[in-house]
Amino acid sequence: MVPHLVTALTGPINELEQRVLDSMPAIERWFRLEWMEHTPPFYCSVDVRNAGFKLAPVDTDLYPRGWNNLTPSMLPLAVQAAMAAIEKICPEARNLLIIPENDLRSTFYLSNLAQMRRIFHMAGLNVRIGSINPELKKSTVLKLPDGETLTLEPVTRTKGRIGVKDFDPCTILLNNDLVTGVPGILEDLNEQYLLPPLHASWSTRRRSTHFKTYEEVAKRFGKLFGVDPWLINPMFDRCGGVDLGTDDGVEALKARVDTLLAKVKKKYKEYGIKEKPFVVVKADDGHNGMGIMTVRDGKELSVLREKVLARAKATRGSTEVDLIFQEGVLTHERMNGAVAEPVVYLMDRYVVGGFYRMHAERAQDEDLNAPGSSYVPRAFAESTHLPQPGLRPGASAPNRFYMYGVVARLAMLAASYELEATDPEADHHA
Amino acid sequence: MVPHLVTALTGPINELEQRVLDSMPAIERWFRLEWMEHTPPFYCSVDVRNAGFKLAPVDTDLYPRGWNNLTPSMLPLAVQAAMAAIEKICPEARNLLIIPENDLRSTFYLSNLAQMRRIFHMAGLNVRIGSINPELKKSTVLKLPDGETLTLEPVTRTKGRIGVKDFDPCTILLNNDLVTGVPGILEDLNEQYLLPPLHASWSTRRRSTHFKTYEEVAKRFGKLFGVDPWLINPMFDRCGGVDLGTDDGVEALKARVDTLLAKVKKKYKEYGIKEKPFVVVKADDGHNGMGIMTVRDGKELSVLREKVLARAKATRGSTEVDLIFQEGVLTHERMNGAVAEPVVYLMDRYVVGGFYRMHAERAQDEDLNAPGSSYVPRAFAESTHLPQPGLRPGASAPNRFYMYGVVARLAMLAASYELEATDPEADHHA
Repeated sequence: MVPHLVTALTGPINELEQRVLDSMPAIERWFRLEWMEHTPPFYCSVDVRNAGFKLAPVDTDLYPRGWNNLTPSMLPLAVQAAMAAIEKICPEARNLLIIPENDLRSTFYLSNLAQMRRIFHMAGLNVRIGSINPELKKSTVLKLPDGETLTLEPVTRTKGRIGVKDFDPCTILLNNDLVTGVPGILEDLNEQYLLPPLHASWSTRRRSTHFKTYEEVAKRFGKLFGVDPWLINPMFDRCGGVDLGTDDGVEALKARVDTLLAKVKKKYKEYGIKEKPFVVVKADDGHNGMGIMTVRDGKELSVLREKVLARAKATRGSTEVDLIFQEGVLTHERMNGAVAEPVVYLMDRYVVGGFYRMHAERAQDEDLNAPGSSYVPRAFAESTHLPQPGLRPGASAPNRFYMYGVVARLAMLAASYELEATDPEADHHA
Repeated sequence: MVPHLVTALTGPINELEQRVLDSMPAIERWFRLEWMEHTPPFYCSVDVRNAGFKLAPVDTDLYPRGWNNLTPSMLPLAVQAAMAAIEKICPEARNLLIIPENDLRSTFYLSNLAQMRRIFHMAGLNVRIGSINPELKKSTVLKLPDGETLTLEPVTRTKGRIGVKDFDPCTILLNNDLVTGVPGILEDLNEQYLLPPLHASWSTRRRSTHFKTYEEVAKRFGKLFGVDPWLINPMFDRCGGVDLGTDDGVEALKARVDTLLAKVKKKYKEYGIKEKPFVVVKADDGHNGMGIMTVRDGKELSVLREKVLARAKATRGSTEVDLIFQEGVLTHERMNGAVAEPVVYLMDRYVVGGFYRMHAERAQDEDLNAPGSSYVPRAFAESTHLPQPGLRPGASAPNRFYMYGVVARLAMLAASYELEATDPEADHHA
C-alpha cells in the first residue's frame, strides 16, 4: 500500500523524510544487496531538487565535474571510496590516466582536474592527465589561480593501448562526456579499463532511458518502504524525431506538454499543492545547445520552435529534435537569498559529498546549471551520511542530507540498470 | 639497501616521512595487494609514538574502545568503512549484536558504546547491545551524561545461537577483549559471525607474537621502500615463565633487560641520538594488573618483583610471569603542555580517524594509557588521509598524520598475519 502522505505544502517531505529515516537500516541493506547484483557507475553527480512537498533527482551526470567544490573535510571520504572502487576494478593498478574535456579554458574546470588528480593519487595511483584534443601536439603546463600546475599531455595510441609519453595506464578515467561523439582513439582498447564505459557517454545515453529506469527504481523503492513514488520521481514524456519545422510537429508537442501538465496538476490537487505546475524541456541526447526551457503551457513552445529554427539556420542542421519533457520540480531552498539546489557526489556506491549550486538571477522553477552563467557552489556544512535518529526531520540539516543521499543513490542505481541495458557487450538474451 | 637516514635528532623522522610521502602511490598499492591476500581485523586501534627520530606502534588493540572520541567529521569515514566491512563479511546482514565489556561503570565507555551503535546503525544494521555478564538478569536502561540512553539486554543462547530477546543477529561484534578467558556462551556458535574471532582475544593473544609479526612486516616494508626498519619498529624481547619468586628468575630478567638496553644504545649511537634508552615492561598476555613499567636499568626490576610478589600474596596467584620487554619510544608530542600520543582508529582496511591521548602528570617515557588515570583525548585537527604533496614534511600536520596512518596500518597488517597464524581452524599444513 502506498500511503498518501499529507496535504499541507511543507508536510509531505517531512513525513517522507521521517519514513526514510525510520527505515534507514532496511534502506541501507537494500542498497547493499542491490550493489551485490549491479555495478555502480564509477562516479557520478546527481542534481536534486527539493520542492518541500517533493524531493527528486533532475539530472544524473556520469562524468561529474566540480570535484573541486567539495570541502577538505569531504576529501577523505572521496579518497576512501576511490580506494574501494579501484580495489574492485583492478587491485594491481599502478597508473591512472585521466582524460579531461577538450576545452580547458575554464580555471574552475582545471581546479576540478587538480582535485581529481589529488583524490586518485591519495588512493594510491600514479596519475597523469592526457588530452584527446587533436589540437594538443605537445605536453603543456597549465597554471591554476592558486599557483598549482597541471601537465596536460597528448594521448597516443600504440598496439591498441592508449597512454601518454612513458606511461602505460591500466585504467583510464574519462571526465569527458563525449557529447560530440566517440573518437576512434578510445575505441576497442586492448586490455585497458576505460571508465566509465563508452556507452555511458552522451553518444549512447538518452535522458529518457535514464528517467524510465529511475521511474522503475522509484516504484520499487516506494513499494518496499511505503512511499508514493511520485514524491521522489519527476514524471516525464519523451518525444523523439519531432520536426519543429512543421506545424504538425509543433502541435503534437504542445498536446504532449499539456497532457503532462494535466497529470502534474492532478497530483498537485491530490496533495493540496497550490503551486502552478511546469514542465522542463531538454534535449534527450544531452546536447544542451538549445538550452533548457521552463514551460507552463503548451503554447510557450513556439519560443522553443523559433530557437530551434534559428539554430538550424545557423548550423545548417536538421529541424528534427529528440526531446524529453520533465515535470518541473521547484527548489524551495535558498542560500543567502539565492535559489539553490543540492548536487550530490558519488564514487562507487558511496555518497562522498555535495554542495549547493546557487544562482542569484534565476527563479525557483528555472534550471540553475545554465551554461556560461556564474554560480556559487556552497559545500554542505554537514556530511550526507549522518542522520540523527530522534531529531525532528525539518529541524535537522543532517537528516535532510541523508535523504538527499538516498535519492541520489536511487538515481545512481537507475544509472547502473541503464548501463546494463545499453551495454553493447552484454548478452541480453541471457 | 637500507639507508641510514640522518644523525641529527629531529632529522630522521622527517626524511622517513619524506620517503613515505614520495612513495605514497606505491605504498597504497602494496597495502591494496596485501589486503587481497589477507583479511584485516574487523576493527582496531593502534597507539603510535613519535620520538622525532623514530615513529612506531606500541600497542594494537583488537577490541578498540574510545570511538566516542572521534570528531563528528570523522564519523562518515567510519560509517563508510563499516559499510565496506559488512558488505564483505555478510551483505545480507540485518541485525548486529554488540557485546560490551562486563564492567559498565565508566560513562566514557557507555559513550563509546553509543557511538558504535550509531556507526553500525548508519551503516545499515539494526543494532542491539547484549551483555554476557552473568550478573545481568534483565534488560536495563543506562543513561548517558548527555541524556542519550542505552538498553543493555542479557545475552541468551538457544540451539547454538546467541541473541537477545526477539533478536537473532547474524553478526556479533565483540567489544570485550575477554582477558579473563572465553566464556562458554561464546564458543561453537552455529552459523553466526563472531567478530573479531575468539583467538583475537587476550585468551589466545600474546603481545610478543604481535610484535614478532610486526617486526617481519616492518622489515619487508623497510626493504621495499628503502627505510631502516628500526625507525618504525620497537625492538623487544620476550621472557616467558619467569618465576619472580626466585633470585635466579630476577637475575635472568635483569640480564635480558640490560641486553635489550645495550641494543637500543647501539642504535642511538648509530643515529647520534643523545637520549637515554629505556625499556617498557608489560605482561605478555594483555593482563595489565601489574602495570606497565618504564625501566632504564636492569636493577630497577626489583620494584617489579615487589609488585608481583605483593599481588601474588593478595590474590594467592603464582609468582610466575610472562613478560615482554619493549624498546621504549619517547613521545615528543605535546598538546597544551601535556605529553601526548596519537591513537589511530581503523575499521576494515581503512584509517577512519584518531586522536591524541594526553596525560598531564606523565613524562614522555611513560605509558599514557594508565588504568584509572584521567586523560584528555584531542581529535586530530585534520584527516589522517590527506598528505599534501609538495609541502615540507615537518611543516605540515596532515603529512604527519598520513605517516601515522601508514604505521598504524602496518600494525594492523601484522595483526592480520598474527590472527592467521593463531587461527585454530586454519589448516597450517596447507
